[in-house]
Formats: sequence, C-alpha cells, structure tokens
Amino acid sequence: MSLPVSLAEALAARFGSRFSTAEAVREHHGKDESSLAPQPPDAVVFAESTAEVAATVRLCAARATPVIAYGTGTSLEGHLLAVRGGVCIDLSGMNQVLATRPEDLDATVQAGVTRKQLNASLHGTGLFFPIDPGADASLGGMAATRASGTNAVRYGTMRENVIAATVVLADGRVIQTGSRARKSSAGYDLTRLFVGSEGTLGIITELTVRLYPIPEAISSAVCTFPSLDEAVATVIETIQLGIPVARIELLDALALTAINRHSKTSLREAPTLFFEFHGSPAGVEEQARTVQNLAAAHGGQDFDWATHPEDRSRLWQARHDAYYACLGLRPGARSLTTDVCVPISQLAACIRDTQTDLAAHQLTAPLVGHVGDGNFHLLLLTDPDNPQEMEAARAFSNRLVERALAAGGTCTGEHGVGLGKRKYLAREYGDDALDVMRAIKQALDPQDILNPGKILPDT
Amino acid sequence: MSLPVSLAEALAARFGSRFSTAEAVREHHGKDESSLAPQPPDAVVFAESTAEVAATVRLCAARATPVIAYGTGTSLEGHLLAVRGGVCIDLSGMNQVLATRPEDLDATVQAGVTRKQLNASLHGTGLFFPIDPGADASLGGMAATRASGTNAVRYGTMRENVIAATVVLADGRVIQTGSRARKSSAGYDLTRLFVGSEGTLGIITELTVRLYPIPEAISSAVCTFPSLDEAVATVIETIQLGIPVARIELLDALALTAINRHSKTSLREAPTLFFEFHGSPAGVEEQARTVQNLAAAHGGQDFDWATHPEDRSRLWQARHDAYYACLGLRPGARSLTTDVCVPISQLAACIRDTQTDLAAHQLTAPLVGHVGDGNFHLLLLTDPDNPQEMEAARAFSNRLVERALAAGGTCTGEHGVGLGKRKYLAREYGDDALDVMRAIKQALDPQDILNPGKILPDT
Repeated sequence: MSLPVSLAEALAARFGSRFSTAEAVREHHGKDESSLAPQPPDAVVFAESTAEVAATVRLCAARATPVIAYGTGTSLEGHLLAVRGGVCIDLSGMNQVLATRPEDLDATVQAGVTRKQLNASLHGTGLFFPIDPGADASLGGMAATRASGTNAVRYGTMRENVIAATVVLADGRVIQTGSRARKSSAGYDLTRLFVGSEGTLGIITELTVRLYPIPEAISSAVCTFPSLDEAVATVIETIQLGIPVARIELLDALALTAINRHSKTSLREAPTLFFEFHGSPAGVEEQARTVQNLAAAHGGQDFDWATHPEDRSRLWQARHDAYYACLGLRPGARSLTTDVCVPISQLAACIRDTQTDLAAHQLTAPLVGHVGDGNFHLLLLTDPDNPQEMEAARAFSNRLVERALAAGGTCTGEHGVGLGKRKYLAREYGDDALDVMRAIKQALDPQDILNPGKILPDT
Repeated sequence: MSLPVSLAEALAARFGSRFSTAEAVREHHGKDESSLAPQPPDAVVFAESTAEVAATVRLCAARATPVIAYGTGTSLEGHLLAVRGGVCIDLSGMNQVLATRPEDLDATVQAGVTRKQLNASLHGTGLFFPIDPGADASLGGMAATRASGTNAVRYGTMRENVIAATVVLADGRVIQTGSRARKSSAGYDLTRLFVGSEGTLGIITELTVRLYPIPEAISSAVCTFPSLDEAVATVIETIQLGIPVARIELLDALALTAINRHSKTSLREAPTLFFEFHGSPAGVEEQARTVQNLAAAHGGQDFDWATHPEDRSRLWQARHDAYYACLGLRPGARSLTTDVCVPISQLAACIRDTQTDLAAHQLTAPLVGHVGDGNFHLLLLTDPDNPQEMEAARAFSNRLVERALAAGGTCTGEHGVGLGKRKYLAREYGDDALDVMRAIKQALDPQDILNPGKILPDT
C-alpha cells in the first residue's frame, strides 16, 4: 500500500519534517508489545496540537485513507497495526499537562502525556493519578483501550477516571465529550463511548482525569498460600467484607520460581498475594490486621507487612519484577498474554480449570492476576517461529476465553480487543449487540477510516 | 392523536386486560412530578416480561408509533410525557429480583423493581444498594436517567453502579449490553450508552447492579455555619483531604425555616451540613473528628454526631423532611426544581451569585445540595397558574444554567434532560457533539419511535 500522492504532498507541505515516510519510522510505528507480526503505516505525522490532528484527519478523510493514533506503542493486542495502511498520527509530542486543579481533584492533559509524567508533574500537590497498567503508557492510549491495572479494585479503571475528553471525529471536527462536573445526566454518555473505542470512533487528543489525595498512610502486605484456591478464597472474603483494599495481586508458584531465578531471591515458590492499603495510619493498620486474620484462616504463611516506603518497595519488588522475570523463564520466547476477567465467585474455579488445561497441554504460563477485580493474565511463553507452539497457545487462549464467558466474564479485562480478540466479541455480546456497535461505527465513521479492522470482526 | 386501529387490535389481542385506553389510565401515565402539563399516551400496556416489551415495540415499530417506558412516574423533567402520543409501556409489573449474588456483590433485577424493594430483598445478606435519589424510583427509570442522590459522593451514580443491562431495541430485538465482569475492555461501552439515554435508544428491561457490604459502623453528624461560603469551604476541604464521606448534604437557612415550620422544631435557621460516614467503628469516629475540626475552623457551630441508628435518624430527619417541608413554605405552589452541578472549586461562587440573583428577583427558593459532588437544587416555589411567575422562574433557571456552564458544569447533575433541559444541550456540548448524539439516535432508532421529543432539541 502507499499513500495517494496528493495526500503525501499535502501532509508534507503542512508538517514538513514532522511528516515521514522513512522505513525506520514506519516500522517503529507498526509494531506493539504483542506477539503479532508488525504492519507499518504508509506514513507518520508527528502532531503537536488538536488542530494538527484535525487537519491530518481532514486530509485523510478527503481521500478515504486510514488514520491510526499512536501513543507509546505499548498495546498488547495489535491496536496500532496498520492492517490497511494509512497514516499514523504520533501523539507523543502532545505531552503538555494543560491544567492541574487541586481543588477539583482533576487535571487536563494532552493525550501524549504518560501516567508517570502526570504523576511527576503532581509532585508537591499532595495528589496522584492511580491508574497503573504496568507500562508507562500515554493517557490517551490508556483511555482508548479502557486500561486499568493494579489499583482498579479501589480507584476504578479509565472508564471511571476520565471525566471528559477532546475528540477529533472522522471528518476532522473537534468535540468536547462533556463538562468537568463530577456527575451529569445531560444526554448520551459520549465520554464513556469514546473511552475504550480504540481510536475507531474518534481520536482522543486531550482528556480530563480524576486525581486523588495521596493517602495519609500506605501499608503493604505479602502472604503465601498452600494453594491457589486458598489464596483466591482470601481475596473473595476481603472484597466481600468491604475492606477498601487499594491493590490485591496474585502470583502463582511458577511466577515466584521465575522471580527467584530473575532476581536471585529465595522467596517461597507458592501462590502469593500482594496487598496495598490506603487510608489513615490507624485505618491501614486495621485493614492489614483484618486481612491477616482472613489469610491465616486459609493457611496463609509468612504474612509480612510494612508501612515505610522502603520496606513496602521490598515487599512489592517481586510483583513489580514479575513480567520480565516471567519472560526470562524462556529466553527468546514471546508472551501471548491472556486477559480474561470473571465475576469473583467464579475466579477460583476458572483458575483451577485453567491450570488443569495448562498441565494437560504441557504449556508454560505463569499467572499474574489483578484478582480483586476477577482479572488475571497468563503469560504463554511461546516461540513465535514455531507455528505448532503458537497454534497450541492460541487454542489454549480460545478455551480460556470460552471458560470465562461461560462464567459470566469478558474476553478482555483491560488490554482491549484490537485485532486478536475480535473473534470473541460475537460470543461475548451476541450478534444483535454487535450490530449496535456496528451501527454506531457506521454512524460516526461512515468511510471506515478510523483505525479500521479493529474491535469489530469482519462481516 | 390516536393509535392505528390495527395496532390497538393487535395489542388488545396480545395483552387482553393488560392493554388499556381508559382515560384514567392514560392520564395517570401522562404526568410526572415536574411542573410540566400532563400529556397522556394513547394507550398503556402493562408488560410482565422482556418478551412482552419486545413484542409491543415490534408492533409499534411496524406502524412507526411512539413507545414510552414508564416506571414509577417520579421524573422531574417530563421524561414520560407522550408529546407525540403513542403507547406507554408500564414496567411496574416487572418487579422480580431475579438473582442476588452476595459473593459477587451484585444483583440482577427486572426494571420495575424499586430501590427500596431491592434493599428490602437484601435483608439478611449484609449487603445494600446505595443509590438514593429520594423518590422510591424504579431501577430501570433510575438507570435511564442516570440518577444518583445523596450517596453518590462515595458510591457513584447509576453510571458507576449498573454493571450490565438487557435492552429492547427500536425494532424489538433484545440485547445484553455486557457481561457481569467488574471491568472489561471489550468494545464499545453499550452499558454506559443506554444508562442516561432516557428510553430514547432502547428500553431497559433488566439490569445488573452493584451491591455493597453494609458498613460495620455508620456515624452521622450535623453542623451549622455562619454563611453558605463557610459551609461550602468545609465541604471542599473534606473532599480534598480524601475523607471517604458517604453523604454530605447542604441546606440553606430558608430550608431550615421551612423545616422548623413543617416539623415544629427549633433548629438554628442557618446553613447546615449533614454528614454520614461509613467504615469501621474506629474509622467513622476518626472521620467525624477530622470533619469536626475542619468545620470548627470555618465557624461551624452545634456540631452534633451520633452512631446509634435512632440518634442518626434524629440528626438526619431535617434533611429527609426537606423536600416536602420546602413545598409547604407556599401551599398550593409547585416546585420548578433546578439541578446544576459544577466543579467543586466553583461551588461557593456559583451559590453566592445565585443567592444574589434570587434576592434581586424576589424569588422564594430554598436550597438543597448534594454538595460533595458540586450538585445543588433550588426549589422555585411558583404558582403554576401565574404565567408571570412561571416566566420569572424559568428566566432564573436559564441564568443559573448559564452560570453553571460558564463554571465548567452541567445543566443537570441527576434529573436528566427530558423536555425541559433540551434547550441547554447545544450550549453545554456544542453543536458538533450534539450531532454525534443525533447520529447515534438516528442509527439506533431511525423511525424516531423511542420516547421521541426527549433529550435532543428539535432541529
């Protein structure tokens, strides 16, 4: 594929050196962190303002050329792959924190601001932005994929934390999706419509997000369990008691093995829960004690908790290292990462059946879970050059998704649909609900130029 | 207007005595609790299942006849007025709690279940449903208007508390908007699209809502202030400190006067804040003490707090009586109730300017506010038979909305758009965002039969 000459000329005239068709630039913008093969766009525009994004979309719309927004390239589902070519708009230059309003506990940022950058900019305000998907992703990308991560059990996902957005529509018009009011009953919820739409309905160029007071006290705790079942039972009781836990993460024994190898530690290689509590000094102590009692009733051992920052970091180090430690279990392998999320009552059975499935198929896949939400990942370590292995991993992933959907869950808790999960949507929603999504896509992007080929399965 | 004969015959054949064109039935279904003049539908169907709603919609769609869903008739914005005639579907017979899942902290109900009914059915489970808009509205109606109320500052609105819904589309097809997973990145957020759509995109017939553990301890507090400014400053600091207050309500001096007259009490007639704290026994005591210190720094007097249920009820009685007490300030009057919501930093100025405006126009309007969210209501007590008065009240309401929008707020925090607030949407969102809403409406309801004439202003 290549761009219409008139479009390339128009973009070059408008953007000068911030328009590129260089192979290295295109290749960099055609791959993400999934195990999918790269698919570069035909050209890249480095936009610096909403007006520039709008101008690019207008020029592309006039030639029915695809447009794909790019943040930091940390997608795990092929969101930014240019499956039909077109122009990639790199938003990383839109990295201004436009306003921080401590009194309102919100901030307005350009879409290219990353979560770590936002938090760094909040230094001294006593506030923080809690959503932490692991990668230092752009806030625009996090909004577009409805990202979440370890803090979601307490603070919600991007769904709950984007207050409003500036969006460039498929014809280049620019809208605000809502006001800064904390709640509103004024018409259709455009903010929530664009959050999670993966660049297929519009391009988010600015967004207003919620901030939170840094808790007066934070405590962390780690505890090992004789089985995954006992660990998960502890999680369920913690949630049911309404303990306002800020993070509650599960690693399985294999993940701990990976961490011991990676970090030369000698942690017990058993299912392990990592907790974080936010509140007043008395409150976090009370929370930790309550959870300790719950854990003890389920055979929890080695319960260790801490409030000082260094001690907390030590306790959580294993969790933070988990992803790369797990990849290190099999050097050269890539990870096909699953992302199901189920009602918490179904979590123990879903994990148990999944472990049986893994064993039956001799697959290597450590488990990392945001279990307070019912969300867990398996890192299927596979050799991308071995088609049989890839096929076995994909077949396992299909079975896992079927299991999650049968349990009332979703195929993707936080990574998004992108390319890889489109095939599950009809099964998750039914054909008629999918028709509603198609009708919305058709209404807002009749030429199908906004990140085409994503979310909706081909008809 | 009247129904096509073939439609009336088909509905009568299908529903027998649960289909009615009796004048009294039509009149009952053509009025709400707003000050708008009633507009009855041409007929009413009393549906008892999703399949019956779907059958009714299919029959109406074949004749392009309007369909309006009806829950308890407690709308404040004319949502259910049959401005173009048609068939009203009364969902109050769909009052089954279909499933309660304590382990997952959720319940699935038919749309006609009211919030009090749901809470009664939860007796003994240790769980509750927190959203409390005042009226004992149906959960379907609350979802359709994105309702909230006093607990929203802690527990969110219907936006955050509807997990999934069953929706009848404009052609009678039935969809599920999502799974029961606590979070999902699987495609467009259909749940949030239908929540707040006021029956204009589909009819919600069943919904799954979040439940919460009844807090181990609850404490309440009441405090009076020398001025509205000082009361609001206390609210802002409470929110900014991250105190997880469950309710924080403001009444102005006039509302207290109304309550004293109504309930023969002798409360101080001054701006008053009502707090409720949820947590552990130590936690709620800590919260109440912190707030007491904040209030004292702003001249708060008569700080009174309680943990025993009877004492808490006594403290909050004035707040619970406020609505009817305020109506009693002027017997025979109806209330034109405003509903703006602004960023909390703007709340003090917005209330101050509004009080100046009221005084300048000699309007009687006590203030009742969910101030933790920046949402407040003025009950404009007007004689509906006095056109001059009604005009003055409407002009005041227009100025208030302009003030709120200029402050970054919304024309409606929780009552919805219905008929009365359509004129503000273009000002709040801009014409292009309104075009997006229109495009969605056109895509999902091309014949404009679902609650026509609501939300979107006429073109």
